[in-house]
Amino acid sequence: MIIRPAVSKDNEFILDIFMEVAAAGETFALPRDLSREEALEFWCGAGNTVFVGEEGGQIVGSYFLKPNQAGPGNHVANAGYIVASLERGKHFGRTLAEHSIAEARRLGFRAMQFNFVISTNRSAVRLWTQLGFRIVGTLPGVFQHPAQGYVDAHVMFMEL
Amino acid sequence: MIIRPAVSKDNEFILDIFMEVAAAGETFALPRDLSREEALEFWCGAGNTVFVGEEGGQIVGSYFLKPNQAGPGNHVANAGYIVASLERGKHFGRTLAEHSIAEARRLGFRAMQFNFVISTNRSAVRLWTQLGFRIVGTLPGVFQHPAQGYVDAHVMFMEL
Repeated sequence: MIIRPAVSKDNEFILDIFMEVAAAGETFALPRDLSREEALEFWCGAGNTVFVGEEGGQIVGSYFLKPNQAGPGNHVANAGYIVASLERGKHFGRTLAEHSIAEARRLGFRAMQFNFVISTNRSAVRLWTQLGFRIVGTLPGVFQHPAQGYVDAHVMFMEL
Repeated sequence: MIIRPAVSKDNEFILDIFMEVAAAGETFALPRDLSREEALEFWCGAGNTVFVGEEGGQIVGSYFLKPNQAGPGNHVANAGYIVASLERGKHFGRTLAEHSIAEARRLGFRAMQFNFVISTNRSAVRLWTQLGFRIVGTLPGVFQHPAQGYVDAHVMFMEL
């Protein structure tokens, strides 16, 4: 997979992947009626650094990186990741995550934080742990999972 | 203190208090160059329920209440509180907070979460604890305090 900065002509491909992930409703806390315009703002809005992963000339995944808080909190990065459903199990998520951590360091962030890692998303929790993140807090029942009802979410953190 | 829903003619008074709190830079993670327009959007934006506290015909404080996350996370409330600097030490913050908790229950929220309670803001941590919130996570060094450098922030949570 080649990872490169996103350009505007990538937007429709990023959105195709993102809307599929959003519709599944298992990993992001997003409005159920999210429009493509809102999705684009969420993923590629002002202040977000966006990368895409290409395999065989196709965009198979993307991540965004941004300050998790403004002003006095802007030395901590936040990020989001998507991989096309047909491309999972090929470690693209791990490769994107490793790239994003290096990019966050390069941009001068001192730490990285995920605010809302759904506890039932075990592959994500395992991957972030393997990459050096730790669970610094667990939010009880904060996510209404489409199949499992109210489930916990973790706050995960790593110094860079 | 009388607490009532905010109306648009309250905005300038809310903003006077909020801009003062924001300029102190000790409690909110906001851009240092925050404009009044951005401040208004932050406090009174779409989806926020805003109340003001009046004492002797003057607005002395305000709070907003909103879903902390969208969609599958929208059963948990988030809130922010401000009290005018000259009006502190009169328990207006506590009264606003108690009102907001009752209002969150009335609106059907199942829980309430503060994402970023600065650890050096001891009166806030003490007040939230007294009202039933608990620290569910501590974020190391995530807030650059104007006097104390990098300090921790707490994630605080209460079931309603």
